Amino acid sequence: MSSSPAAPDDAVRACIEESRTAFLDDLVDWLRIPSVSADPAHGDDLRRSAAWLAGKLTAEGFPVAEIWETPGAPAVFAEWPSGEPDAPTVLVYGHHDVQPAALTDGWHSEPFVPEERDGRLYARGAADDKGQVFLHTLGVRAHLAATGRTAPAVNLKLLIEGEEESGSPHFPDLARAKADRLACDAAIVSDTGMWSAQTPTVCTGMRGLADCQIDLYGPDQDIHSGSFGGAVPNPATEAARLAARLHDEDQRVTLPGFYDGVVELTDSERRLFAELPFDEGAWLRTAHSHATLGETGYTTLERIWARPTAEVNGIGGGYQGPGGKTVIPSRAQLKLSFRLVAGQDTEKVQQSVREWVAQNLPDGIRHEITFWGAARPCLTPLGHPALQSVVRSMERAFGQRIRFTREGGSGPAADLQDVLGVPVLFLGISIPSDGWHAPNEKVELDLLMKGAEATAYLWGDLAENWSTQTALSEESALSEQSREG
Amino acid sequence: MSSSPAAPDDAVRACIEESRTAFLDDLVDWLRIPSVSADPAHGDDLRRSAAWLAGKLTAEGFPVAEIWETPGAPAVFAEWPSGEPDAPTVLVYGHHDVQPAALTDGWHSEPFVPEERDGRLYARGAADDKGQVFLHTLGVRAHLAATGRTAPAVNLKLLIEGEEESGSPHFPDLARAKADRLACDAAIVSDTGMWSAQTPTVCTGMRGLADCQIDLYGPDQDIHSGSFGGAVPNPATEAARLAARLHDEDQRVTLPGFYDGVVELTDSERRLFAELPFDEGAWLRTAHSHATLGETGYTTLERIWARPTAEVNGIGGGYQGPGGKTVIPSRAQLKLSFRLVAGQDTEKVQQSVREWVAQNLPDGIRHEITFWGAARPCLTPLGHPALQSVVRSMERAFGQRIRFTREGGSGPAADLQDVLGVPVLFLGISIPSDGWHAPNEKVELDLLMKGAEATAYLWGDLAENWSTQTALSEESALSEQSREG
Repeated sequence: MSSSPAAPDDAVRACIEESRTAFLDDLVDWLRIPSVSADPAHGDDLRRSAAWLAGKLTAEGFPVAEIWETPGAPAVFAEWPSGEPDAPTVLVYGHHDVQPAALTDGWHSEPFVPEERDGRLYARGAADDKGQVFLHTLGVRAHLAATGRTAPAVNLKLLIEGEEESGSPHFPDLARAKADRLACDAAIVSDTGMWSAQTPTVCTGMRGLADCQIDLYGPDQDIHSGSFGGAVPNPATEAARLAARLHDEDQRVTLPGFYDGVVELTDSERRLFAELPFDEGAWLRTAHSHATLGETGYTTLERIWARPTAEVNGIGGGYQGPGGKTVIPSRAQLKLSFRLVAGQDTEKVQQSVREWVAQNLPDGIRHEITFWGAARPCLTPLGHPALQSVVRSMERAFGQRIRFTREGGSGPAADLQDVLGVPVLFLGISIPSDGWHAPNEKVELDLLMKGAEATAYLWGDLAENWSTQTALSEESALSEQSREG
Repeated sequence: MSSSPAAPDDAVRACIEESRTAFLDDLVDWLRIPSVSADPAHGDDLRRSAAWLAGKLTAEGFPVAEIWETPGAPAVFAEWPSGEPDAPTVLVYGHHDVQPAALTDGWHSEPFVPEERDGRLYARGAADDKGQVFLHTLGVRAHLAATGRTAPAVNLKLLIEGEEESGSPHFPDLARAKADRLACDAAIVSDTGMWSAQTPTVCTGMRGLADCQIDLYGPDQDIHSGSFGGAVPNPATEAARLAARLHDEDQRVTLPGFYDGVVELTDSERRLFAELPFDEGAWLRTAHSHATLGETGYTTLERIWARPTAEVNGIGGGYQGPGGKTVIPSRAQLKLSFRLVAGQDTEKVQQSVREWVAQNLPDGIRHEITFWGAARPCLTPLGHPALQSVVRSMERAFGQRIRFTREGGSGPAADLQDVLGVPVLFLGISIPSDGWHAPNEKVELDLLMKGAEATAYLWGDLAENWSTQTALSEESALSEQSREG
């Protein structure tokens, strides 16, 4: 396949270097806004975050930058037409909401007071996802500066939603309602990571997500465990029993029908995964964990990338203060999330959870289930031509071969695929140690700059190669990067 | 057996009626002190509570009223010698600490601002146990007023501890250290209840208690359930699995050796229990519960009075705020309590828990277990002569036959039995709807007065009948009230 640089690499790098300080100052400003979508108390912060971004995109030159309301948090849409009639249209997806964070969770600095230390920027949202969204502003600037263009080589659209960390409950409706404005030839999701700083990769799939809260109600109030213990159902015990029954001894999920339709790994996919330089000890350190545990018969990478799972994200019931309190609690709560892979249907999983919970509680325990929304799984064929453009642009930025991964996390990428009928690609520069959803989230500044550089090449590469899609696709089917290769 | 009133009933009742208002005013003062032993923040309140009681006992006439320090909360000891050389010595046990309580738990009035409504006094500790301790001050006053004595007919001792709601961790040591001062012929525990206001009863046994907190540690910080889910152990899941494994399908406790030595119910005991006017619907309302659930093969009364149990008092781990948060939590916590019956050994149960937890956790999950102290189970033979005195005194106060129950709750009664080598009796007037450990705890004021009345008779009855113990014991062995009767 031919490499077709659309922007001189030196000029791209010079522009990025020159803009770096102002770019980071701006990013720090944005990260100061605690746009936590899970907590209704942060509604105003989400609006501030969206307004801030729309303002910056306008200042960067986007002729269109709008705030799109939803029944929840607002999204930001921006558009910069190429001006050339045959230019392909690309939609970049990211999100401006962040996970909850508090200093007391174990942060070394305030999560919403960004701190640069040792070439890293520490803040909630630094990697997930504000940093990876904001790199596109620098990328398009470098693309224009290096090519001398006044508009991008592609019709560039950005859709930056505000509820990704809450399962994107209104995203499918928004995408459907705005399908005309969002129309594109490919979507590029910038909300994933790479294998490592040393082994840059492109992601080809994401797991889906269905998560829920199960509230269990037993006695109408907490009661004395001596006077009544052993004779009435205990909602904390029942919450525990549900959580415990989720897996069998092989750590397989026991929900009826859970594995129906699951696209199994092929032998060659397993071989490709096995070729990655996986060091279990190092991976465990990144996971801040002390042992592996997962579905029997699969490797760790297979478990997190290609296998569906169930996790307890939260459990609570009864007395949790200091010392003991001998009560049977009146209520308990279970927060569960299910990661789904290609072939699984979120609605079927939700329905299975509903039926399973109802069938696994004794008389005297009332329950309610709330689903927080769902993200469908998705998978991009390795041989897709637009993916080849992404790979080439990454290889120019990183100066080395780009390998392939999948992403264990979830996003609304599949909704874009479904609603817009386009392929979904991934371009992300975060690495596992960035601490997504965890204390001391950070982004590596050098990788952030390389990500911007890759996008500066990407728009030209896509514009140049879009018409040769079919040929490239055929060629790539023979390449070692094929999914079956 | 002969009834031998030592105080004219009318005089006792007149004294109680006359003192009622001042007595209740004093009790309200005491209940305002939030003497919560489970929470270290209430250390000063426990000291205030002890000082308040010692002051009141002195004012009531007790020549000795001391505060006994422990490594935890202080106890109060008081003594009022009879002055007669052959008088028996009786030790009354109760506690001045209370369970945690907060308005937000569902109280209709502030738990530490006592409110009298409809003949009931609502406050944390109203029944458990300040009300039942304080009735002894009124009882001794009526005893003296009606008999014209200046000192009780028995050598009366009170030991009111400050850590009962925390499992009395320092009580056995205190009892041993002060065994000389506590020396007595019988102990009377005023920390139990009756069947109902209509069916007054005397309790003959208490379940023991071993309770603990199990802290589980997985990842060193919360981690992303998408990036790592399905591949590392989750401490919330493991806490749930421990809780779920506590029971088998018959709701029997699965701890190895848990039932070793358990004193099984005899057929006649089961028949006595079955004769009580038990209405399961009414009992469920008292339990604020909507169904029964317990060990297969036993009735509800058998389950709560005579069978050992395990309960989850609290479980917590991961995100418990609004909405979802897709983390694998770094830690989880389980608070368990085990109710024990005669024949079980608290130390053996604790050791079994330690081994069981260690054997039931996967690699990568570190754990710590903290036991909050333990209370041994105890059982008083129905035919004991001092118990007959209690029954007679109760029958005079209530004007009806007194039946027998056991108590599902726990207390340090067995420690008194062990350390002092004396029989332990129970005299309590609380009823199941009093809401021990629950929101809206209350005491029925009429029953509180009858309890005081019963103790006013009891001291004379015991003094008069103590020397005929043996004869009474033989007689009672033939009576219908015998344990085998």
